[in-house]
Amino acid sequence: MALPQHVTITEVDPRDGLQNEERIVDTDRKVAFIDALAAAGLRRIEAVSFVNPKWVPQMHDAAALMAALPRRPGVTYIALVPNETGACNALSAGVDELGTVLSATETHNRKNVNRSIDESLAGVEVVARLAAAANTPWDGYISCAFGCPYEGPVPLDAVLSIAERLRGLGTAGISLGDTVGSGNPRQVKETVRAFRRALPGTPLRLHFHDTRGTGLPNVLAALEEGVDRFDGSVGGLGGCPYAPGAAGNVATEDLVYMLEEMGISSGVNLEKLIAVARESEEMVGRALPGRVKQATLIARPSA
Amino acid sequence: MALPQHVTITEVDPRDGLQNEERIVDTDRKVAFIDALAAAGLRRIEAVSFVNPKWVPQMHDAAALMAALPRRPGVTYIALVPNETGACNALSAGVDELGTVLSATETHNRKNVNRSIDESLAGVEVVARLAAAANTPWDGYISCAFGCPYEGPVPLDAVLSIAERLRGLGTAGISLGDTVGSGNPRQVKETVRAFRRALPGTPLRLHFHDTRGTGLPNVLAALEEGVDRFDGSVGGLGGCPYAPGAAGNVATEDLVYMLEEMGISSGVNLEKLIAVARESEEMVGRALPGRVKQATLIARPSA
Repeated sequence: MALPQHVTITEVDPRDGLQNEERIVDTDRKVAFIDALAAAGLRRIEAVSFVNPKWVPQMHDAAALMAALPRRPGVTYIALVPNETGACNALSAGVDELGTVLSATETHNRKNVNRSIDESLAGVEVVARLAAAANTPWDGYISCAFGCPYEGPVPLDAVLSIAERLRGLGTAGISLGDTVGSGNPRQVKETVRAFRRALPGTPLRLHFHDTRGTGLPNVLAALEEGVDRFDGSVGGLGGCPYAPGAAGNVATEDLVYMLEEMGISSGVNLEKLIAVARESEEMVGRALPGRVKQATLIARPSA
Repeated sequence: MALPQHVTITEVDPRDGLQNEERIVDTDRKVAFIDALAAAGLRRIEAVSFVNPKWVPQMHDAAALMAALPRRPGVTYIALVPNETGACNALSAGVDELGTVLSATETHNRKNVNRSIDESLAGVEVVARLAAAANTPWDGYISCAFGCPYEGPVPLDAVLSIAERLRGLGTAGISLGDTVGSGNPRQVKETVRAFRRALPGTPLRLHFHDTRGTGLPNVLAALEEGVDRFDGSVGGLGGCPYAPGAAGNVATEDLVYMLEEMGISSGVNLEKLIAVARESEEMVGRALPGRVKQATLIARPSA
């Protein structure tokens, strides 16, 4: 299969990255950070989650942040919502798209949101109704789709069955997450093929954590299957509070570098994005694992 | 093309890794380190280089190291040699295989060994004669085969032309190196296909530095073309003294993890190798970039 010519990246650092940080970043700084991501050319940004600040204090200012955020034309600002309350708040804040997440395994889902998968799907149904009423699209995210830190291997049928139920609820697309970064390229190809057979026409987005170095190889495997939607987290920030030891997402700047070198456009300006990755390090107060930002002393051979 | 079922890894940390370190490691510690690599199941180890200690002081003890090293059956201990003197010393030390290196670009070759490519090839011819007389195989390494920090893009024809001349001199195999880690998967596939057309039957080994996160994606691309010989550096140690800012090789333990998860054997025991990766960090006194060794808090989903 021919590689896609263009890839759409969803930047998740402001939500999936910052939610794991102890340091609570000022709202103004988050706003400037998100706007810098948009200025670098990212067209889909998961900006916040509307969750209980008791559990995720880093997202306490979601409504204030959305109110302060300058909206750039053509940019989709996304909010993750866990339930009806979150969805109401997100829609009131005027987000462009919702994301709802549940896990492919009962154990991780219970650790993450203290519900069974069926209970989570019932919650998604409520979110879906609210989103439809507000004429706002939503994506269904399935975490631990490539492996679970508690249950180990995850049967592909379990993932597809949840995906089919999400489609039945009206999801605009499905995001499959390798939450602990245990997936491998062979598995990714099998998963993509099975997904396409089971849910033909449903847009597929992939979200790879890079715990064991397989993030970009998994992207490559998916590209070879024609997948053209990927999540990234600038700098490689991230993890999962309920997946101990999991590292961050694929660093967006490393993803953009690889795509560009392969002749695949993403609309992102790599130099600007590297500057934002460095700001991300400043913001959280530590070095982040993304590689390209450490490599700019070298002449860029293709330049 | 079907993926290979087995991959042979050449471990280069003791040479390509340590040569870049300021700290000079004791001979005894290097010996124990190399033996631990062999005990972990690595069957090809680039143990030393026989070079002028004025330029590479870390390798000053190459002969003493080879004398002290316990030889495990079935393990090939390799020495990199830059010239006739190095080859004589390496053969006297009883190494199993020689490696000789030259660059695909005149500028990098001159920076690296202060010779033109033709002068380097004349030196290889002398090494080849000595190796043949000692009945010792040698591989020809071409560095900067995927990009040069001075000249930028490297024409594939230049790489293949050098490879053909090395084959004419009797090389057992060719190793193509992405010395600065600028290569991309599309380029790797094109290079492998062109190499196979130009040098059918010549064993091909690939050596990827991971400066920009493309190390394992490049391995995957090559696997898909049937390549089954890769270099790794445990922990991801390495760089190039004449490629400023270049990061280390693909971390061997990350390579082994990805291969294992894809069902490709390498004969290496991952748990033992992770222990050696941690020893590598102790040895050089700093954290190394390999990912898998940082991830073992997580239950291994496939276990």
